[in-house]
Amino acid sequence: MAVYTEVSDEALTAFLSEYDLGSLLSYKGIAEGVENTNFFLHTTAGSYILTLYEKRVREEDLPFFLNLMGHLYRAGLSCPQPVRNRRDTALGSLCGRPAAIISFLEGISVKRPTAHHCRELGRALAGFHEAGRDFAMSRANSLSVDAWRPLFEQAGDQTDTVAPGLAGRIRTDLALLESSWPRDLPSGVIHADLFTDNVFFIGDDLSGIIDFYFACTDALAYDLAICLNAWCFDAEGRYQREMGEAMIAGYEKRRRLEPGEVEALPILARGAAMRFLLTRLVDWLNVPSGALVQPKNPLDYDRRLAFHRHAGHARDYGWSG
Amino acid sequence: MAVYTEVSDEALTAFLSEYDLGSLLSYKGIAEGVENTNFFLHTTAGSYILTLYEKRVREEDLPFFLNLMGHLYRAGLSCPQPVRNRRDTALGSLCGRPAAIISFLEGISVKRPTAHHCRELGRALAGFHEAGRDFAMSRANSLSVDAWRPLFEQAGDQTDTVAPGLAGRIRTDLALLESSWPRDLPSGVIHADLFTDNVFFIGDDLSGIIDFYFACTDALAYDLAICLNAWCFDAEGRYQREMGEAMIAGYEKRRRLEPGEVEALPILARGAAMRFLLTRLVDWLNVPSGALVQPKNPLDYDRRLAFHRHAGHARDYGWSG
Repeated sequence: MAVYTEVSDEALTAFLSEYDLGSLLSYKGIAEGVENTNFFLHTTAGSYILTLYEKRVREEDLPFFLNLMGHLYRAGLSCPQPVRNRRDTALGSLCGRPAAIISFLEGISVKRPTAHHCRELGRALAGFHEAGRDFAMSRANSLSVDAWRPLFEQAGDQTDTVAPGLAGRIRTDLALLESSWPRDLPSGVIHADLFTDNVFFIGDDLSGIIDFYFACTDALAYDLAICLNAWCFDAEGRYQREMGEAMIAGYEKRRRLEPGEVEALPILARGAAMRFLLTRLVDWLNVPSGALVQPKNPLDYDRRLAFHRHAGHARDYGWSG
Repeated sequence: MAVYTEVSDEALTAFLSEYDLGSLLSYKGIAEGVENTNFFLHTTAGSYILTLYEKRVREEDLPFFLNLMGHLYRAGLSCPQPVRNRRDTALGSLCGRPAAIISFLEGISVKRPTAHHCRELGRALAGFHEAGRDFAMSRANSLSVDAWRPLFEQAGDQTDTVAPGLAGRIRTDLALLESSWPRDLPSGVIHADLFTDNVFFIGDDLSGIIDFYFACTDALAYDLAICLNAWCFDAEGRYQREMGEAMIAGYEKRRRLEPGEVEALPILARGAAMRFLLTRLVDWLNVPSGALVQPKNPLDYDRRLAFHRHAGHARDYGWSG
């Protein structure tokens, strides 16, 4: 949670003068978002989120993210809509940062999802994949299998300070993942970071998906594997089969998994756990002093990996064919 | 800026079930507020601020603050209105903290006020004092002259590490303030913390006053003296006489200062500077490691004190009688 960049009323008023959004009524920094600075923005035209992109987001990727949001919104997905300014671009500059205004989406993130939430998420994920099918741009997944060894090397000798034996477990799994990572699965735009904070519900209904700043072009089933990791383990790291079953069934209601995807699901889930284990490990070992953001514990994903190591078939995740 | 207490969707939904506010649409932690945790809250009934009172606010003072807000709102002041739950109280409990829901107020804080803003603030301050006249409760000012020496003693030997000679300057001024502090001025409810962040404007119009958590019973003119300190110095610590003139004139349009108040204005302004110098000094010397909040520089008020030391009459502040 953090506001990395302070925005004065004068700077914001000048920025807003490029948009047809009426006049400013209020804005407040939002205490969430690890990567960027976000403001809740209210003008006479409505409610918006103003995002200033901080250094962890590469500026050259922003057109991909913003165009994707616009594309998905037009395809009927419930996601924020980037607002274009009078120069017909959604990307502006504020306080020396790239900045964009997107529509405000109502909804609440659930902290402890149930099987019902997982089913809804599965359906929405398949809808996302379908809506992204005819999106013209592409972006390589910079955090896929080829990026994992360099991350592991970055953690280096310090890895075992986090948990005894962790380096050894990563080394073994990494070799296996590198040698058997599937390369020819159906691919398209994936969200790649669909954790519970990025999915909104109003009552029992999924009301929207946010935060597209890890979106990229990759295997569609890998996105599902990320969600299985993110949603279907309890606080003690035990897999909740009925939640996975609901998520996969929800997904398949809208997009049936191909046999190759079903077969690959265990390795994809294991890879997804490795990806989050490694990025969290590096963040954990590199907390700057005085950090505003508490890094997430990498060991949650060490426990998930232990489950994946013994899962041999998509059925172990609740796929019922 | 901080969210000190995380509130889960489940806890919030349970809390809201005690209110007639319809159903929850969204809530976001707000990255402001040094003392408390604030959420922007949107329900089917409207927009609100949810505040969880953290340990710096004394729980026994909360009825005073909330009743005051309700009183001022009913008197027509543009300020947040506390929402009462079905047990007809505005004060509840959430995540182990005292908590309240207040109406959301539109408006923007100006970072660099002009004479126009100061005039508006003066008028609103007098309106606040008038509206508070028939408020039945009272609360002693726990940060008035009697509290200053204990604060200075808390800073102790460390004072001069902040600026050479600072302890000596404080010692001399403190003795003078203690011996000549006026005790019989017209008194009533004062805001006592009306800095620019606590005053909202929409366009040129003052749209509201927030944050009543330092409000107390004290000399009305002391509140004006606090505002002169908070609004009428530039970034280099130079008094902006035309801003003070506008503020005092704005105030007197609604409530004429009595001769005793005019006479006391220089010492009140000096005392107000001392109060903020000392609390900031103590905060500055006691930043916990890993603090989420950057303390404010006490030296801004050392420079203000230098001005007040040479101001002999209300005219030096722009009062034109």
